[in-house]
Amino acid sequence: MPPGFTLTTEICTYYWANKRSYPKGLTQDVEKNLRKMEDLPGKKFGDAENPLLVSVRSGARSSMPGMMETILNCGLTTQTIPGLIKLTNNPRFVYDAYRRLIMMYSDVVMEKAAGIEPADDMGIRRQLERIMDAMKQARGAKSDTDLSADDLKELTVQFKAKVKEVLGKEFPDNHMDQLWGSIGAVFASWMGKRAVAYRRIEGIPGEWGTAVNVQAMAFGNMGESCATGVGFTRNPGTGENAFYGEFLVNAQGEDVVAGIRTPNPINESSRSEQSKDMKTLEQLMPACYKELANIRKKLEKHYHDMLDIEFTIENGKLYMLQCRVGKRNGPAAVKMAIDMAKERLCSKEDAVNRVTPSQLDELLHPVIDPKAEAKTKAMGKGLPAGPGGARGQIVFTAADAVAWKKAGKDVIICREETNPEDIEGMRAAQAILTARGGMTSHAALVARGWGKCCVVGCAGLHIDLAAKTITIGGVTLKEGDWLSLNGSKGLVYNGKMDMLDASESNELLNEFLKLCNGIRALKVWTNADTPEDAATARKFGAEGIGLFRIEHMFYGKGADEPLFHLRKMIMSKTADERKAALNDLFPSMKKSIKETLKNMEGLHVTIRLMDPPLHEFVPQQKDKLEQLGQALGISMEELETRANALHETNPMMGHRGVRLGVTYPEITEMEARAIFEAAADLIKEGTKVFPDIMIPVVSLDTEVKHQSEIIHRVYGEVSKARGVKIPYMVGTMIEIPRAALQAGKLAETMQFFSFGTNDLTQMTFGYSRDDSGVFLKEYTEKGLLPVDPFQSIDQDGVGELIKFCVERGRKTRKDLKVGICGEQGGDPASVDFCHNVGLNYVSCSPFRVPIAILAAAQSQIRKPRKNK
Amino acid sequence: MPPGFTLTTEICTYYWANKRSYPKGLTQDVEKNLRKMEDLPGKKFGDAENPLLVSVRSGARSSMPGMMETILNCGLTTQTIPGLIKLTNNPRFVYDAYRRLIMMYSDVVMEKAAGIEPADDMGIRRQLERIMDAMKQARGAKSDTDLSADDLKELTVQFKAKVKEVLGKEFPDNHMDQLWGSIGAVFASWMGKRAVAYRRIEGIPGEWGTAVNVQAMAFGNMGESCATGVGFTRNPGTGENAFYGEFLVNAQGEDVVAGIRTPNPINESSRSEQSKDMKTLEQLMPACYKELANIRKKLEKHYHDMLDIEFTIENGKLYMLQCRVGKRNGPAAVKMAIDMAKERLCSKEDAVNRVTPSQLDELLHPVIDPKAEAKTKAMGKGLPAGPGGARGQIVFTAADAVAWKKAGKDVIICREETNPEDIEGMRAAQAILTARGGMTSHAALVARGWGKCCVVGCAGLHIDLAAKTITIGGVTLKEGDWLSLNGSKGLVYNGKMDMLDASESNELLNEFLKLCNGIRALKVWTNADTPEDAATARKFGAEGIGLFRIEHMFYGKGADEPLFHLRKMIMSKTADERKAALNDLFPSMKKSIKETLKNMEGLHVTIRLMDPPLHEFVPQQKDKLEQLGQALGISMEELETRANALHETNPMMGHRGVRLGVTYPEITEMEARAIFEAAADLIKEGTKVFPDIMIPVVSLDTEVKHQSEIIHRVYGEVSKARGVKIPYMVGTMIEIPRAALQAGKLAETMQFFSFGTNDLTQMTFGYSRDDSGVFLKEYTEKGLLPVDPFQSIDQDGVGELIKFCVERGRKTRKDLKVGICGEQGGDPASVDFCHNVGLNYVSCSPFRVPIAILAAAQSQIRKPRKNK
Repeated sequence: MPPGFTLTTEICTYYWANKRSYPKGLTQDVEKNLRKMEDLPGKKFGDAENPLLVSVRSGARSSMPGMMETILNCGLTTQTIPGLIKLTNNPRFVYDAYRRLIMMYSDVVMEKAAGIEPADDMGIRRQLERIMDAMKQARGAKSDTDLSADDLKELTVQFKAKVKEVLGKEFPDNHMDQLWGSIGAVFASWMGKRAVAYRRIEGIPGEWGTAVNVQAMAFGNMGESCATGVGFTRNPGTGENAFYGEFLVNAQGEDVVAGIRTPNPINESSRSEQSKDMKTLEQLMPACYKELANIRKKLEKHYHDMLDIEFTIENGKLYMLQCRVGKRNGPAAVKMAIDMAKERLCSKEDAVNRVTPSQLDELLHPVIDPKAEAKTKAMGKGLPAGPGGARGQIVFTAADAVAWKKAGKDVIICREETNPEDIEGMRAAQAILTARGGMTSHAALVARGWGKCCVVGCAGLHIDLAAKTITIGGVTLKEGDWLSLNGSKGLVYNGKMDMLDASESNELLNEFLKLCNGIRALKVWTNADTPEDAATARKFGAEGIGLFRIEHMFYGKGADEPLFHLRKMIMSKTADERKAALNDLFPSMKKSIKETLKNMEGLHVTIRLMDPPLHEFVPQQKDKLEQLGQALGISMEELETRANALHETNPMMGHRGVRLGVTYPEITEMEARAIFEAAADLIKEGTKVFPDIMIPVVSLDTEVKHQSEIIHRVYGEVSKARGVKIPYMVGTMIEIPRAALQAGKLAETMQFFSFGTNDLTQMTFGYSRDDSGVFLKEYTEKGLLPVDPFQSIDQDGVGELIKFCVERGRKTRKDLKVGICGEQGGDPASVDFCHNVGLNYVSCSPFRVPIAILAAAQSQIRKPRKNK
Repeated sequence: MPPGFTLTTEICTYYWANKRSYPKGLTQDVEKNLRKMEDLPGKKFGDAENPLLVSVRSGARSSMPGMMETILNCGLTTQTIPGLIKLTNNPRFVYDAYRRLIMMYSDVVMEKAAGIEPADDMGIRRQLERIMDAMKQARGAKSDTDLSADDLKELTVQFKAKVKEVLGKEFPDNHMDQLWGSIGAVFASWMGKRAVAYRRIEGIPGEWGTAVNVQAMAFGNMGESCATGVGFTRNPGTGENAFYGEFLVNAQGEDVVAGIRTPNPINESSRSEQSKDMKTLEQLMPACYKELANIRKKLEKHYHDMLDIEFTIENGKLYMLQCRVGKRNGPAAVKMAIDMAKERLCSKEDAVNRVTPSQLDELLHPVIDPKAEAKTKAMGKGLPAGPGGARGQIVFTAADAVAWKKAGKDVIICREETNPEDIEGMRAAQAILTARGGMTSHAALVARGWGKCCVVGCAGLHIDLAAKTITIGGVTLKEGDWLSLNGSKGLVYNGKMDMLDASESNELLNEFLKLCNGIRALKVWTNADTPEDAATARKFGAEGIGLFRIEHMFYGKGADEPLFHLRKMIMSKTADERKAALNDLFPSMKKSIKETLKNMEGLHVTIRLMDPPLHEFVPQQKDKLEQLGQALGISMEELETRANALHETNPMMGHRGVRLGVTYPEITEMEARAIFEAAADLIKEGTKVFPDIMIPVVSLDTEVKHQSEIIHRVYGEVSKARGVKIPYMVGTMIEIPRAALQAGKLAETMQFFSFGTNDLTQMTFGYSRDDSGVFLKEYTEKGLLPVDPFQSIDQDGVGELIKFCVERGRKTRKDLKVGICGEQGGDPASVDFCHNVGLNYVSCSPFRVPIAILAAAQSQIRKPRKNK
């Protein structure tokens, strides 16, 4: 490794705190370190006879977006150029190095770090490239390696003139000016817009600062016995334990990444379609390759991880320039973690920590081929509501989606927003795209539950249902045209993009989850309404159902009959009418509960009593209304009057949840009876069942007392009549701020709590999930909110209520079981929060279960707690 | 006073705790006390020769609803009757006493206390009365005094047979059975339905229990030298310092109150229209009257209050039966409090404590004549949304209300619900009646602000706009028919009821408020949008404006022009369109603010920035929409699209308040500029102004930072340009639970907080103010909620957030000013809460200012705090 030194972050912070005035300590440090560095190569920085060149790069967190690129060849001036030519006897090399310096320095230091925003996106770099292109064209040169020393010398003259013209400043001709300019640029990049935005999103404190590496140059561009390359100690795309890398002969580092020349593979296992006829480093410079392969092993042993390395070969001598932990994709990350734990290269905890939740997520869904995506501009952007990628032909109605799917077509259903009547169409579609709605809109909730690709709230999307067209980003597409969606990023693409399948290596996933399960303390349950959901979640390792919505039976396939009885019940005016309708509803409700309890045999199933406002179920179609009127024996006019009476201005805070159970106790009674009779049947059949009954939208202790009295009474009746005991619990959702505050009182009668963080977030912020999309996006963009609180628990506000609640609840009832069943249950930061405040479990959509398992394990490593 | 004794509450509690088994201590006590009591008259309870009779009544909290009436003549049995006849030589008297005992005892003890619910409301008492009526008819008797001893004897035989027949039990013929039965009935009445319900509403603990008084009988029904009466030491209707009372010759206590015979006045000052030709006690029995008048003075001196007394004259000898603090109406209470403080009969604090807030309220509004109301059955019941009473002819539209009013008619406007476009009609009407909405619905808020009579959410009310009729309680009324409303109780009456004017004695009110002001620590501000509101409130003593809604100018008279500009702004699509509309809006906004600041010269005026969701201002009428489209130069279709885009599912939690200011900073900027320029103008004119700018709907500290930066910047600009300094503050509403939790952070930039308890209650409970009426009524009726939390602060939940918030806010900023401007600011229990948690002020509707002043003074007496 060429000698170098690092200026620490503290100096950087000091420097920035002092507004760009160089502190004395820093200048002394640099001088002292330069002298030390000069010892080894025996060259002097700035010396006319025997000049040392250096590279300057960010020395900490250098891979963060927005951090400065490396400046190479620093120290080349009219003073040092002649000496270097004399020394190397290679004027072409020297002028090549000089033109590179001018290009990099004028771009990175003189333009970007100075905060100059070029007009029309024509930065200085592109202007210089044009000059170079013109020169190549004039000389008939295919590549820059075809340019002669004189050509390059001429270029540097033209470059410097252009820099003066565009940036209004001379290119610095003093080695120390170049060095300090480069150092300043690294520090400046830490405070640049992109870096600041990234840190905000990732929650990285600005005070950390960066560091600066100054390193003696080794030259890969001195001729055919020189080369430069980058490598990974293992394959970053597959995770395979094989050295992987690329290099270029007679080049400098930037050429490998810039993609101007196609690089060679370092060995056979790095060979690709593109490089199939090229020589490898192993073939061209076997000694250097052998040394490099040895170093690769040493490095992995030392760092216990897969590394990203940079090297240069100067006249047959290998120099390592830098090494850092290598980036990898999801499947590779999982494979390497498992392998390294097996190889004892790292501990199990390290292995678990090495996979990020989004890497794990990559294994669970098909995605748009990243290569294709990198080349394509998205036509629109919405919220990333359902994971993975998808492509399909545009349809506009649920019926069409179902019909086209039957005809063997892949479709994407495009809607203003979706509602429960669209369910079958959404299921049939490859993906869902909506113009309105936020991360917890109907479409988003349903899609995430299924692990289906979905983009919602796509602001630029205009849907013309009559013409059957959509317009987005100025482009109009019609029914049947192809769209592709990236649901993990919220991007919409025109046309049919290449796809990568979901990893079929379930074995890999299972092995990794086993590692996590061996560590975590927090249990992971799932929100599941159907047997399919439950099966998926169980496969991933869910240990119970945290949310089974009793009203699920009114949506989707087979819902027609129960829905009809429900509607009769809703439209009833007298208790007698209502009871008759409930009696009709009872058999299908019992059947549905029985199926689910059977499917989850041996596990807890948390059944939430009726939650939505009743008017949500009032039919919109005329024929359905007429049918209903006939069944109830009332006129359409009367039916309309009753439907209108159910209308609410703010339904989210209206007559719903437990409030229905209080005003219509007969509903609660019917639900309890359906649950207990289903359970009794199963127990008699020898099935183990654990039904937990959960009361929603509670704000008063009197409400849960009122409801649990009904439930316990019905239990007594069923238990006596059927002669069985059922192991059941009664608990409450905590989704209203007042319920959180009253936890002590609620725990007097309630055996478990489950945080409904969707609603709790709504009420705590006063953000309607349906309406807040409009301003929430702006809030996160403007930095008023670090993150959408419907995606990740707001720990300052909502989190404080949760903490209060857990403390107070457990003070009253020591063994109170507490979980969360809101959408945030599958969000890693939220899982970490739940782990830390001592919840018993998180419950999330089936496809988030693996993510939650990983997050729970990482939380336990970060801050161990006793198992609960 | 005849001798007697009291069984204390402790024994009562013990008795009830032990489920109706008489404790030994109690029986011994009774025996011991009976013996003592017998000494003085020299008679013996149950003795055949010389029998003592006793009365039994509740001895504590006897005037509470549901408490048992007095049982007279206890101890009359077949054993004692002959002796008493011999002793008094007055068989008529004895049988009269006996038939009274049977009537009272069978009713109160054998039926009510035993919990028997008579069929068809035909209780035993009414059945016995029927027998007596038949007897009177048979004898041609006008009054029961016309019945002979034999008649009465015969009656008692028939009575006892009927009792046996109806209640299935013999009337007890043992004196001790009668006594114990009566004692048990007193205790039982404490646990009766009515008493329990009353205690729940008033927050009186059940453990207090009651006591029992057993007293030797004095007889007012032994002949013409006997009498019985009740009196008040001062006039309970006017407060005048004059002895007031009524009496009957040859009667027992129950006759005076029962109203069967018209009682005589005790003196001239007690004479009424009805009794104008009757003899007074002063005339009939001057010695007794003189003695009574002396006792009256002694009692007031002893008890320092106006007393309600009962007396009996037995053969020319005066006996006092009981005295207790007398009930009085509002004006009387205020007058007596002031007088007694002046007479040094009580301290200033006592005087203030003696007037209840609802008594004070009586002085502020006209009311339906209580006498008329007592005789009339209400046809419907809704929520008591605006105080006092009113009568008027039914109209259905705002325009009609205004037109009829102009034509000199009194009208009541009847609507499904009201909206801002109805404002002028509501102002013109005597009262407002709506079918929907709760205590904080639009109609309720507006009416309470004006002190106008209003009943909302009248569930049984059906309005047929086409037919111009209303149907309520089965009665259909048409436009122009008369209605009367009691807005303090929520009652609706058919027809034109007699009214009592609001007290014109402002002097009385002012004098009383001065007493209160001398005591209280909590400041009282007002919520006022118009100069009239402000003037009213100032007259009552408001010390600042706690809520001036900047959008008030878009409602009511003169709103057309600013509203038009506002609508242009709302419908703007680009920032430029919006800025142009804001420029047009600026002059009228500045003018309106200037007027108010001028009107409140020298006082703080808290100006709340734009609060409601924008779509609230989108016009409904087609012509207004067309006008708007023309002004903006866009098609109706485009206009509709823009209007639809503003639609929200849950507008209360949507894009409103500070969220508008964040997404459209130009709105905040315009508002700030209007405020500061108005203030600058006034200061230059020599007017003292204190504008406080309040940011609504805040949930994040970043929001207030964002907004206050704009406000401070605009201040700097205006201040510099105009060369004046303006004493202003910037603060925030606390109306979102998260804001309360984040108080510490908010106080970093905010100089004051004001609790918007309407919204805070909404979010903390998840109760939509517009929709919760449906179930809230049932919740309070079923006892799930002690009181509507929109009327009185929910101290357990919302109150806890308020406490947190005050603590945390003041921890950051010691001198943080904290107030409340929600509707509960005028509710006495809420004022008490605010006093105790250390708020600086409460702000309420102008007509609640006196109530708040009184409540604040009473709080200071109850729990003194240092002035802030």
